[in-house]
Amino acid sequence: MGIYLDRIKKPNDIKKIHKEHLYALAREIREYLVESVSETGGHLASSLGAVELTMALHLLMDLPKDKIIWDVGHQAYVHKILTGRKEQMKTLRKLGGLSGFPSEEESPCDAYSTGHATTSLAVAAGYARARDIQGEHYKIAAVIGDGSFSGGMAFEALNNLGQYKNSNTVVIFNDNNMSISKNVGGMARYLERMRTSTAYIGFKGGIERTLSKTVPGAKAADGLRRTKNFIRDLMTPGEFFKEMGFGYFGPIDGHNLWDLIRTIRAAQLYKGTAIVHIYTKKGKGYEPAEKNPSKFHGVEPFDVATGQLKNHVTKKSYTALFGETLCELAKDDDKLCAVTAAMSSGTGLDGFAARFPERFFDVGIAEEYAVTFAGGLAAGGMHPVVAIYSTFMQRAYDQILHDVCLTGKKVIFAIDRAGIVGNDGKTHQGIYDIAYLTSIPGLTVISPKDGKELVAALKFAVGFDGPVAIRYPRGAAYESGLDLTPIEYGKAELIAGGKDLGIIAVGSAFDAASIAAMRLESEADLSVSLFNARFLAPLDTRMVDSMIECRHELIVSVEEGVKSGGFGQKIESYLLEKGYKGAFLNISLPDIYLEHGDINELRKKYGFDSDSIYENILSYAKKKIGFLRREEEADEGKA
Amino acid sequence: MGIYLDRIKKPNDIKKIHKEHLYALAREIREYLVESVSETGGHLASSLGAVELTMALHLLMDLPKDKIIWDVGHQAYVHKILTGRKEQMKTLRKLGGLSGFPSEEESPCDAYSTGHATTSLAVAAGYARARDIQGEHYKIAAVIGDGSFSGGMAFEALNNLGQYKNSNTVVIFNDNNMSISKNVGGMARYLERMRTSTAYIGFKGGIERTLSKTVPGAKAADGLRRTKNFIRDLMTPGEFFKEMGFGYFGPIDGHNLWDLIRTIRAAQLYKGTAIVHIYTKKGKGYEPAEKNPSKFHGVEPFDVATGQLKNHVTKKSYTALFGETLCELAKDDDKLCAVTAAMSSGTGLDGFAARFPERFFDVGIAEEYAVTFAGGLAAGGMHPVVAIYSTFMQRAYDQILHDVCLTGKKVIFAIDRAGIVGNDGKTHQGIYDIAYLTSIPGLTVISPKDGKELVAALKFAVGFDGPVAIRYPRGAAYESGLDLTPIEYGKAELIAGGKDLGIIAVGSAFDAASIAAMRLESEADLSVSLFNARFLAPLDTRMVDSMIECRHELIVSVEEGVKSGGFGQKIESYLLEKGYKGAFLNISLPDIYLEHGDINELRKKYGFDSDSIYENILSYAKKKIGFLRREEEADEGKA
Repeated sequence: MGIYLDRIKKPNDIKKIHKEHLYALAREIREYLVESVSETGGHLASSLGAVELTMALHLLMDLPKDKIIWDVGHQAYVHKILTGRKEQMKTLRKLGGLSGFPSEEESPCDAYSTGHATTSLAVAAGYARARDIQGEHYKIAAVIGDGSFSGGMAFEALNNLGQYKNSNTVVIFNDNNMSISKNVGGMARYLERMRTSTAYIGFKGGIERTLSKTVPGAKAADGLRRTKNFIRDLMTPGEFFKEMGFGYFGPIDGHNLWDLIRTIRAAQLYKGTAIVHIYTKKGKGYEPAEKNPSKFHGVEPFDVATGQLKNHVTKKSYTALFGETLCELAKDDDKLCAVTAAMSSGTGLDGFAARFPERFFDVGIAEEYAVTFAGGLAAGGMHPVVAIYSTFMQRAYDQILHDVCLTGKKVIFAIDRAGIVGNDGKTHQGIYDIAYLTSIPGLTVISPKDGKELVAALKFAVGFDGPVAIRYPRGAAYESGLDLTPIEYGKAELIAGGKDLGIIAVGSAFDAASIAAMRLESEADLSVSLFNARFLAPLDTRMVDSMIECRHELIVSVEEGVKSGGFGQKIESYLLEKGYKGAFLNISLPDIYLEHGDINELRKKYGFDSDSIYENILSYAKKKIGFLRREEEADEGKA
Repeated sequence: MGIYLDRIKKPNDIKKIHKEHLYALAREIREYLVESVSETGGHLASSLGAVELTMALHLLMDLPKDKIIWDVGHQAYVHKILTGRKEQMKTLRKLGGLSGFPSEEESPCDAYSTGHATTSLAVAAGYARARDIQGEHYKIAAVIGDGSFSGGMAFEALNNLGQYKNSNTVVIFNDNNMSISKNVGGMARYLERMRTSTAYIGFKGGIERTLSKTVPGAKAADGLRRTKNFIRDLMTPGEFFKEMGFGYFGPIDGHNLWDLIRTIRAAQLYKGTAIVHIYTKKGKGYEPAEKNPSKFHGVEPFDVATGQLKNHVTKKSYTALFGETLCELAKDDDKLCAVTAAMSSGTGLDGFAARFPERFFDVGIAEEYAVTFAGGLAAGGMHPVVAIYSTFMQRAYDQILHDVCLTGKKVIFAIDRAGIVGNDGKTHQGIYDIAYLTSIPGLTVISPKDGKELVAALKFAVGFDGPVAIRYPRGAAYESGLDLTPIEYGKAELIAGGKDLGIIAVGSAFDAASIAAMRLESEADLSVSLFNARFLAPLDTRMVDSMIECRHELIVSVEEGVKSGGFGQKIESYLLEKGYKGAFLNISLPDIYLEHGDINELRKKYGFDSDSIYENILSYAKKKIGFLRREEEADEGKA
């Protein structure tokens, strides 16, 4: 791996590397990162940009006593490598392997589990208060990118943090002019002005002159203490932060390890929360990632020499289908517009943005605002489509309820990555949205079974007078090959009628459930009704009634979501109240935080592959009901 | 009512009042407001502070074509009076009467229904884009208080709004140095500096000199256009807003009608979104409210002459019990701390704040931050109690899930105003929390039946190793008079064992359900099991098993929450899977947005008074099951 990196086997080992070799170590870390992620896939560009920063923090802090709090956590791979998890990097994001995010379960050096944006300042504020109240003395550093600064909770945190005279609490503002999509908004423009201001140049000169004789080491602290006031008095461009009550240090070059060490150390001595503003380059040191940081934000396995993806997926994704369909519809409907929260590419809206720039809105990592803004657009007569991942839509629960559904506004929620998402794991699984969406009064929720149905559902939603959420999974759009029956409000789709038992499949579970149904017919000689649920809210009670009328002795629901509050429970409630006396099998996910891993491995582990569904239903049928009497009778007849 | 106010019968009628009489009108409006709210109760202080502002907006805008968007909406009473709803003010917040908030259903002049804070800028942004895209030309004004500016969505909105060259879009920043609790944080300090800066004084002088000859009317527009550049060039203290891309006008005296008219008109001519910064006094013009704006924020009926409440409630509220108990516990447990989101008084934490200031945190109207900050406190070894109303906790759904429960952090959520809240209505009902909390994995949810149990639940939660939510209703704590059985994790409380049917009551529904149960025993000769659910998550399956074992033919659940995703559905799911063949009656709220009204009237209307519960259960029992055969047999025996 490299002669210096090989010597880092546990937390704080980096301090044993002679300072003359630290840049060599940085090079080795980058090489290792690129090599490692090229095989596993993962979030590369952010970590490449944070190599020197992570090294500086590890040199200045004592882990796990001191706390480094990463925002989002994409940039924490180097931190993992430096805290004894280097060898495990080859298991990154695999089932049973390292998480792609900081994880308290994984290491005591991961001070807070994360995955969603804009949490780090709030967590650091909590840690700082807890420490100071208890008279403890550890150091705290939160690392937040400029992208996360468009999220409201960052501002809420600044508003609160600034009022405390926290000791040794440093916020690293890692400004790489790049969240996942291009950064947007007033804050971004303000930062842009800072980047280009002469004050930055002047400050850099100043700090170089003043600190050039101080080197990291035992004597440096005194020198830094003397220069602290000088630094504070410099005319820096961080007025915004200073107004909010922070010490402001910077901006400095985040790839200059010595500048980082000197400045962070000075900031650690500041009485109050100090912000260290650094500039970094996403993808730094690996040319393909520097040139295309968006592509290498989260990336599948790739060829190191060329940067080309190894397994180029050719099947069209749900995401792409959504984006294309919306463009098609928007050609003829000038009320349609699209809102994204810093996920233009991830939600398939790049094409829409290019073709209809006036009707495209990227509001930054600000899901709450995205939804209420859409409510305003709808009130003004437009028809907005808000495209956000299932997991991030959790942020806007109240806005969906209070600002859209309470008044029945015509807003379409395009909820991507619904169901098991795979490698991103616990923090990102889209397995709660059925529960949180279907309990919101007045919200119609559709879960299409395949790509063709997603297209139809979007067209249906555009024609519908009220709020509609369409939830669809990550990855290639399933092609069921079935003719699509027209979408009628609140009506499930009958795929096949049978006599013995009925299966109701939800969205992503349809594929496997339909195979299981066919096997139950062909291999177990059961006559099976199969429904595509299509509408999760309102519940199609006629579908359920029809199964009761058919005297099904077993009804099965299959959904890739947590059981509590899920679709299956809503069917169960209805069945019980209707006096259904048969059995029910609720195939759903347990009420847990599902770990990371390959999406198909996870489906198998949790019983969502067709074999598991088949066996689950068959064994339940054998235990619970009389269907198989015919077989037994037949056997007896033979005997 | 007053000779000028009498002439205002419909929207825009204010324009007929001669300008010499506008101050007299303001006086009449204030008198009417005080008189009216003294009888109905309601939110008085905010509206008193917004009299001149509302008049200015109505003079400058054409309703309902133009859009006024009120943040939160407490301050919109004057707007209601000026838009033809004066006579209806006596029905304010009563069942079937006027809503206490802007309501699209109520009037086309209410441009957006609201109730929660920090939505107005997002809504205005949506309206502005919709208008400009469609080539329409109406005026937009959003009115937001300084309290709402501590909410992250306001910042998300500033970040997004500033980048558009919206025409005629004005944000009135109504700075009264007062949200419900005292305003907190860096933003508040920044505003405080602005208030005391000499620039304000200088600016006031400037605008007076320049505009003293321009009066509202036909010729003023030209004059204002000429002075616009002058105003923009003034050295004003709104750097923060200007940095974010806004035109900044002010600060001005928000009780000077002429200043308001001149400045807002100038702001309407600005190319881009303009912020008009005004200073107002909450409670203005009514001395008791000026002196005690917190008391008169939301107030019960009072005596106009003295400001004394008419019906002084003497029974202790759940809120007070919570606050006292937390103080008691905190005396002996120095890890306990309390977090509120601008609701120190409303959540009963004033006493805690006074006794344990170091462990008390008011983070502003920032529920998201409150929860994640608490997660940080817990990670640092403290034991935080986050006290937030049920309806506002909706804002922090993701933070509860992602930042607390995912890692099982020891955070206690004290969820006040759970269930029907009454007069605040649709936007404030605490009827969704059972659904959204019980689908979050790893969160223990407790719903105490009475005050004594709330105290015990809080003690239990303090001793429990994991996140716990305790939800309790608004108003006086119920005294069941029952001995409290000790709280055991996940275990319901058996109140009475019976043979025929079982009732499971949730929290606030226990009182009425227990009376109904007694009547079923005494009047209908049924043998009734009664359970206090106590734990909503996890479900006490042993309780349900015991009812199946007792061969209950009817099981009833009673909860003041929406049916979808509620506790009843979770019991139904379990029952069906256990093969229960009896009947089930799920007494819960329909999946709607419940209107405003007296809390007891609403309970009656939706079947939660003891009579309704009794009759509902009895008639269901008669229809569904064989219990009453005994009666019939007895009757037959007599015959």
